Amino acid sequence: MYPLISIIGVKGIGEVRKGEKLGFLINDALNKQGIKMMNNDIIVVTSKVVSKAENMLISLNTVTPSKFATNISKMLKKDPRFVEAILNESKRIVRISNTVIITQTKHGYICANSGIDQSNIKKDHIALLPVNPDRSATQISAQIKSKTGQNVAVIISDTFGRPWRHGQVQFAIGIAGILPTIDYRGKNDRYGNELKVTEIAIVDEIASAAELVLGKLNDCPAALIRGFKYNFEAGFAKSLVRSSREDLFK
Amino acid sequence: MYPLISIIGVKGIGEVRKGEKLGFLINDALNKQGIKMMNNDIIVVTSKVVSKAENMLISLNTVTPSKFATNISKMLKKDPRFVEAILNESKRIVRISNTVIITQTKHGYICANSGIDQSNIKKDHIALLPVNPDRSATQISAQIKSKTGQNVAVIISDTFGRPWRHGQVQFAIGIAGILPTIDYRGKNDRYGNELKVTEIAIVDEIASAAELVLGKLNDCPAALIRGFKYNFEAGFAKSLVRSSREDLFK
Repeated sequence: MYPLISIIGVKGIGEVRKGEKLGFLINDALNKQGIKMMNNDIIVVTSKVVSKAENMLISLNTVTPSKFATNISKMLKKDPRFVEAILNESKRIVRISNTVIITQTKHGYICANSGIDQSNIKKDHIALLPVNPDRSATQISAQIKSKTGQNVAVIISDTFGRPWRHGQVQFAIGIAGILPTIDYRGKNDRYGNELKVTEIAIVDEIASAAELVLGKLNDCPAALIRGFKYNFEAGFAKSLVRSSREDLFK
Repeated sequence: MYPLISIIGVKGIGEVRKGEKLGFLINDALNKQGIKMMNNDIIVVTSKVVSKAENMLISLNTVTPSKFATNISKMLKKDPRFVEAILNESKRIVRISNTVIITQTKHGYICANSGIDQSNIKKDHIALLPVNPDRSATQISAQIKSKTGQNVAVIISDTFGRPWRHGQVQFAIGIAGILPTIDYRGKNDRYGNELKVTEIAIVDEIASAAELVLGKLNDCPAALIRGFKYNFEAGFAKSLVRSSREDLFK
């Protein structure tokens, strides 16, 4: 038999409100699609709905911009309150140019605008990234376990740009129940050569795979991945962050 | 009905020999699995088998290292002939450190060792990347069309590291029959906000999705992606390369 993976869009979750348990919402929505979760399924969910459930939306009216934020907002032609929020969520500015600020977020992720987003939420509001996405993923996985009895890994995804290449892709910013990488170190191929590839960031690839059903405009904030073989065990997306010192690609 | 994508591993292709037509080999292998290709299927194939079909394997015995290659090979503890080949395939050295050389290949891709690989080939041989992967993908797509009458996009994938994050993922280095990105510019969400995300590098995400069945050690060099909606039209992976001048993430 050949390898077969299914990626299933989870529809009908509707507007997520603060305090709601995403694990329950996703399970209910899948059940309405006639699908029961199974051991070793994987759920990918966008950070946006996690931020909504965790009350990470704030009104720009509650943000008071600093002088620095006001200064750079003029150059960027952005709302100074939005710039203030970006700075608040960052621990380092990587670059400011044209209409974008690239920062390193408090979690360590390098992305535009500290991952703060204004799409798919109310006007004049912004969505911050979850405070601890690995913990968020763990909670969603536990909610699924409590409802279904099944061990289901969870990946929280966000859309980031990349150096050197146009376009953005999905990355895993929080995970639970799966190791972030597959380690091939020391393994040999059938010719006896040691493999060049040592570690595959499989959770980033699964987040990208989910994009094939998620899209941006079709009210589908989660995907079920079925058929991928992995061990259900604790893993953390934050361990994917490379320290600046060990980064050869700079 | 909910969105559903299938990722199917193509098994039984066996050892690919120079001059063989991968479009035919993949179609035959899928037929043996009981699968007929359909319009708007997508085939992802690893660069390694494309390199084999296009005779891009060379024996290290045919490579004469320069003085420069010999010098840096000592630091890297690598075969000087391998280093010479890396330099030959590059147009720029991004960084040399420890055991790795990061270069920009002649195509423009930034990766370790100019994408040259020693795994899954004969000992003392190396596999160079295809000279023109977009052209290779176009040929494979045309071969599939000639055998099946179906319009099938083709993505040639390779495994690269990324700045800031541990682990490697699949990227699209050559494509045919599909645009490299999905353009959301000017689109609004249901709240009337313009979308933050402007362009999704969907072919990189499809290449990553294929990894879920490809792996590195299971003799599965191609995957069929079925159910993803796209327009069959000409696209080029090389257009994903960002010029150094416009790269904000440096």
